[in-house]
Amino acid sequence: MSKSFKIRVIIPNTSKDFLKNHRAELQKEFPEIEVVSLSAGPESVEDFLDEVIAGPDTIRLVKDAEEKGFDAVVISCFANPAIDACRSVVSIPVVGAGIASLLTALSLGERIAVVTVLKETIPSIEHFVKILGLTSSVVSIRAASIGVLELEKDKEKTFSALLKESLAAVEEDRADVIALGCTGMAGIDKALMKELKKRNYGIPVIDPARTAIRWAEMLVKLGLSSSKATYKLAPPKKRTVAATKF
Amino acid sequence: MSKSFKIRVIIPNTSKDFLKNHRAELQKEFPEIEVVSLSAGPESVEDFLDEVIAGPDTIRLVKDAEEKGFDAVVISCFANPAIDACRSVVSIPVVGAGIASLLTALSLGERIAVVTVLKETIPSIEHFVKILGLTSSVVSIRAASIGVLELEKDKEKTFSALLKESLAAVEEDRADVIALGCTGMAGIDKALMKELKKRNYGIPVIDPARTAIRWAEMLVKLGLSSSKATYKLAPPKKRTVAATKF
Amino acid sequence: MSKSFKIRVIIPNTSKDFLKNHRAELQKEFPEIEVVSLSAGPESVEDFLDEVIAGPDTIRLVKDAEEKGFDAVVISCFANPAIDACRSVVSIPVVGAGIASLLTALSLGERIAVVTVLKETIPSIEHFVKILGLTSSVVSIRAASIGVLELEKDKEKTFSALLKESLAAVEEDRADVIALGCTGMAGIDKALMKELKKRNYGIPVIDPARTAIRWAEMLVKLGLSSSKATYKLAPPKKRTVAATKF
Amino acid sequence: MSKSFKIRVIIPNTSKDFLKNHRAELQKEFPEIEVVSLSAGPESVEDFLDEVIAGPDTIRLVKDAEEKGFDAVVISCFANPAIDACRSVVSIPVVGAGIASLLTALSLGERIAVVTVLKETIPSIEHFVKILGLTSSVVSIRAASIGVLELEKDKEKTFSALLKESLAAVEEDRADVIALGCTGMAGIDKALMKELKKRNYGIPVIDPARTAIRWAEMLVKLGLSSSKATYKLAPPKKRTVAATKF
Amino acid sequence: MSKSFKIRVIIPNTSKDFLKNHRAELQKEFPEIEVVSLSAGPESVEDFLDEVIAGPDTIRLVKDAEEKGFDAVVISCFANPAIDACRSVVSIPVVGAGIASLLTALSLGERIAVVTVLKETIPSIEHFVKILGLTSSVVSIRAASIGVLELEKDKEKTFSALLKESLAAVEEDRADVIALGCTGMAGIDKALMKELKKRNYGIPVIDPARTAIRWAEMLVKLGLSSSKATYKLAPPKKRTVAATKF
Amino acid sequence: MSKSFKIRVIIPNTSKDFLKNHRAELQKEFPEIEVVSLSAGPESVEDFLDEVIAGPDTIRLVKDAEEKGFDAVVISCFANPAIDACRSVVSIPVVGAGIASLLTALSLGERIAVVTVLKETIPSIEHFVKILGLTSSVVSIRAASIGVLELEKDKEKTFSALLKESLAAVEEDRADVIALGCTGMAGIDKALMKELKKRNYGIPVIDPARTAIRWAEMLVKLGLSSSKATYKLAPPKKRTVAATKF
Repeated sequence: MSKSFKIRVIIPNTSKDFLKNHRAELQKEFPEIEVVSLSAGPESVEDFLDEVIAGPDTIRLVKDAEEKGFDAVVISCFANPAIDACRSVVSIPVVGAGIASLLTALSLGERIAVVTVLKETIPSIEHFVKILGLTSSVVSIRAASIGVLELEKDKEKTFSALLKESLAAVEEDRADVIALGCTGMAGIDKALMKELKKRNYGIPVIDPARTAIRWAEMLVKLGLSSSKATYKLAPPKKRTVAATKF
Repeated sequence: MSKSFKIRVIIPNTSKDFLKNHRAELQKEFPEIEVVSLSAGPESVEDFLDEVIAGPDTIRLVKDAEEKGFDAVVISCFANPAIDACRSVVSIPVVGAGIASLLTALSLGERIAVVTVLKETIPSIEHFVKILGLTSSVVSIRAASIGVLELEKDKEKTFSALLKESLAAVEEDRADVIALGCTGMAGIDKALMKELKKRNYGIPVIDPARTAIRWAEMLVKLGLSSSKATYKLAPPKKRTVAATKF
Repeated sequence: MSKSFKIRVIIPNTSKDFLKNHRAELQKEFPEIEVVSLSAGPESVEDFLDEVIAGPDTIRLVKDAEEKGFDAVVISCFANPAIDACRSVVSIPVVGAGIASLLTALSLGERIAVVTVLKETIPSIEHFVKILGLTSSVVSIRAASIGVLELEKDKEKTFSALLKESLAAVEEDRADVIALGCTGMAGIDKALMKELKKRNYGIPVIDPARTAIRWAEMLVKLGLSSSKATYKLAPPKKRTVAATKF
Repeated sequence: MSKSFKIRVIIPNTSKDFLKNHRAELQKEFPEIEVVSLSAGPESVEDFLDEVIAGPDTIRLVKDAEEKGFDAVVISCFANPAIDACRSVVSIPVVGAGIASLLTALSLGERIAVVTVLKETIPSIEHFVKILGLTSSVVSIRAASIGVLELEKDKEKTFSALLKESLAAVEEDRADVIALGCTGMAGIDKALMKELKKRNYGIPVIDPARTAIRWAEMLVKLGLSSSKATYKLAPPKKRTVAATKF
Repeated sequence: MSKSFKIRVIIPNTSKDFLKNHRAELQKEFPEIEVVSLSAGPESVEDFLDEVIAGPDTIRLVKDAEEKGFDAVVISCFANPAIDACRSVVSIPVVGAGIASLLTALSLGERIAVVTVLKETIPSIEHFVKILGLTSSVVSIRAASIGVLELEKDKEKTFSALLKESLAAVEEDRADVIALGCTGMAGIDKALMKELKKRNYGIPVIDPARTAIRWAEMLVKLGLSSSKATYKLAPPKKRTVAATKF
Repeated sequence: MSKSFKIRVIIPNTSKDFLKNHRAELQKEFPEIEVVSLSAGPESVEDFLDEVIAGPDTIRLVKDAEEKGFDAVVISCFANPAIDACRSVVSIPVVGAGIASLLTALSLGERIAVVTVLKETIPSIEHFVKILGLTSSVVSIRAASIGVLELEKDKEKTFSALLKESLAAVEEDRADVIALGCTGMAGIDKALMKELKKRNYGIPVIDPARTAIRWAEMLVKLGLSSSKATYKLAPPKKRTVAATKF
């Protein structure tokens, strides 16, 4: 990526391990990118509650990014928590990993499968698929049954679970593109494509984190940002969040 | 409503005026109902940001309701903020005013119009309409261009703006049912129906707050609550929210 | 239910046994409710022909209910025969058991399965699902292969067939709510939910008859009835039905 | 039409005038066709009630047609009353004028407008459009505000009302095909096309009665009839209709 | 078919064997019909490339048909290659075999399955199903895994593959009508229906070539042709195709 | 764009003027990009016929690009002619300008309007919108009534026509993003956004040519290409195109 752009990648969770791993993974390809995570929020985003809890601090970091002169922000989470609110508070582009992945997938195939972490994560992915209007293109959302913070613990187990669900998506759901449904799966796409290829399946596999970063880069180069007809605040008012634990 | 049921009505904003008015309005018909509002959150829910900000304290009050033995909870806001998360943290029914209104409308007609507060509020209503799968039944969402906290200030102006948009919905969008798109409009439905009737339009108008309370009552009597296949938490983890202002 | 409301439940068939059983079942919970059935019509409603045959006498009983001062009418049949015509001839609310069940289900989950009587019954349920615009939310309609009038004959067989199809709906179709697709199944919901719970499925099961009665009660309390923009007669004309047998 | 086929055209109303006119109109082109109407039913089919009332006698005439050796039956009414039940009781094809018209329209254009009689007729047309799954192709349903039995009374007024609504459909709704929404409009299509052509609109206009007859002829020649997987009766039972007036 | 109509059937491929067989098959029923095929194009139409390659010469033959006084043209290929362009260049009706088959199927049942030649052929059928707006009615598209030019080589193998996929469509996909997805399958429909009937399935099977010819005949008799609002050329310009091989 | 990527931009028409202007426009931003156009084809792509005529030579240039070592191909035309066939013949990514524009638009807003050249061009855009499954997100397609080759002739007229339709899209169709519907409009986006901004509309305007090039760049960097499950040829066969004029 050209050095002239500044993109902030926000991980909407509080796990230090996730931050360390994700930053390391992304900096292999994007050495100068800033990768930050939440001061307060859920340890990982895996269900509807996590999405709400992740919201306030994600929005704070998005506003902060604009103030600090970043050109774009990436929410590095397939569930795109609080994305609409984030878009409403800044004028720079805010890219959600799940949204960028599905839209990229639609330019490569016509029957998208998502392979995500837990069964509990599926409904919130279904919600944003419906909001995007892509229900007829997303043919299945499958869970590998490995939590976000477990993905890195036993990489072989993770890989074989992802491969198993990807094969099922191709063979049972007739998927023709696979989107990895958690940014913690970054970097696994190429090996999965290779295994699928060995079985004679020419199926693109999408890395949601890299895709979102490239999407942000594309928008910046094109000089485009979110529509202010849709992502726009009502007149000013008092808004406070209290410290809480859940 | 039978005294044997305990329903908590949660207003997901922090406005003392809204609380006072809304409680007074509801207690005309439901003298024993508990009506509470947020300790921290937005002053009113009118855009995507408000929804996120309203989330954490709404969820706290929902959990608290279950702990205190309430039989059901009503989120008294047409935008149903954090409803999925709320459903995930308790086993009692959680009723959103917008959801209950649209589903009730569908049993009365086939072309629903929503008349809400501000243009900025429309996109978040569109999102939950899409999630409910009702895009083909909701024919228009119109804004009266009066903020939530302004509704009570000049009641005549409010009434005439709502009537104007309702008539436009009927005449231009061919709507056959109208759902008032803010619980701050509670109690206006009957007069609107009357005015429409005078113009020879037999159009039901739905009061979102009363409808949600009756819905909660119905679910409790039927012994039904949210599906735990969909509204369910991932395994326990640390989730924190920090005090913030927006 | 408050004594101040008068609701007539119309069973749109001519079976004396069904009437006796259904009345007994409903009066357990609604001791003062009026439950009537057809003088002429089909013995049970299980296919497209039954729906047409049930129409004229159902409409007569609906008109009669309004004349006699009832506040609402329930068509106690999942197929809601002649519901649109019924709504067109009166100004009180007319509630169809299938419609009320599906709309209630949508407030509890997002992927509804219907478990009905016969394979021949499925297409007419599909039709009203399409008319309601709920095709994307109703994920499957399954038949227990037991006719309406057989349901009461061998209750164990009935229960085990319903449980089998409910489990298939949950496990194969990923349903998260189940609507029992025949009002002759009234009273079975709780035991089914219990069995599902034992298998760790927190799936609401909807009793269509009770749900429709509660829905009628809700509409009466809210002062709402069908839209006269949609359910409205053309100018007066002669309409006759001749006595026939099929 | 080849003499070797016998098609019965059933008008599902009781108007003697309609029968006389419609028979005369059809026999211009199909001199040997049998055109019959109901002994009991509504004087015309214009609303949901008419459809139900028309059902029993229409079904009787369909069964009778099969017994008398007809090869196919046409229900000469855009609303296709009781069509599913009719298909369920015989093995010969049963063609509905509205269904045949819309499907023919879809082979000529992509944005169909229906121009029908009364505003009260629109909802029942919407229902069968939804059942056919054609909501995205039918862009508007307009009413000429002339009742079925008035169409012949002042032919100039009828023509100019149909032309007015057709032009509105083309210019405002961007329709590219028009289906006349009442079989009482048979024979007006050519003159309408000519008027549209004069205004430089190359818009096909569909005569629902002739189209349904040609459709029946096509099915007979192809040796095709309704699917018995869908249009099929439940096991035999007693079905009676009592004489009534509405 | 009446001698007074002249219909040209265009096979959009260059195979001499296909032409000979198809002409012989069609002339059994339509002795005077003209059946022609391409001078240049693909040997068979089985994938997206074939459709493009077939386009120019198909269009030439369609224009030529109008010049020679034909009343209608049939594109005898389930994929309807270049149909929109063909309709744009002439004023006579142009009927695509796939389109006519699906629309006919919709008048016989509600859940259509297509059984076509190769897996590679499925995506292009999916495309025209989407364009027609029939995705909710077409429940599956299955491939017999026999290429277009192989269908005639081992008729028993072809028949048993088609029967196998038809049974799977009925039993697994719950299809209630089957459309044969290649005009090279003309004449097999009756035997398939018989075999399905033996297994107690009353499923119509549609012969795409005969259906398209009957459709053309129907349009000619009705005096209808394509909408010039949709199928219309931009102002004149130079358009050339160069000789190429692929 | 990094020099290490080689992208070929194919203009699927034969106009020398269009080539000169488009190349000049693109080389302002992408100095090393290769921009080529057809040897044979239509002078411009404005209707269904043009799309077919453009197909063969476009496919030839796509194959040639892969053979010459290009990393990706852009079809610089909003109608994406022959895109599915192009994807089927190579393993490098093939990006269509219309597809990339709509998918990019969906990451910026929720109600997309396309402003294209001629009324005759609208139906073919509608077709690919349906194939992409984006009908619910594309709220209108408007024509500026200026042909492709006229766009450059009177730039002021072009600009004011585009602005007029863009304003209508925003004000009448409630669009929140605008996609310019012809690659001949490249470079006009920024000025349009500015004019919209002056009127207080924060509406992104998408330049289809630049967007497609950036999309290609993104796919190359991500190592992704079209799914070979969907875009795949049937077994080898003879395919020829003859020289023709239309």
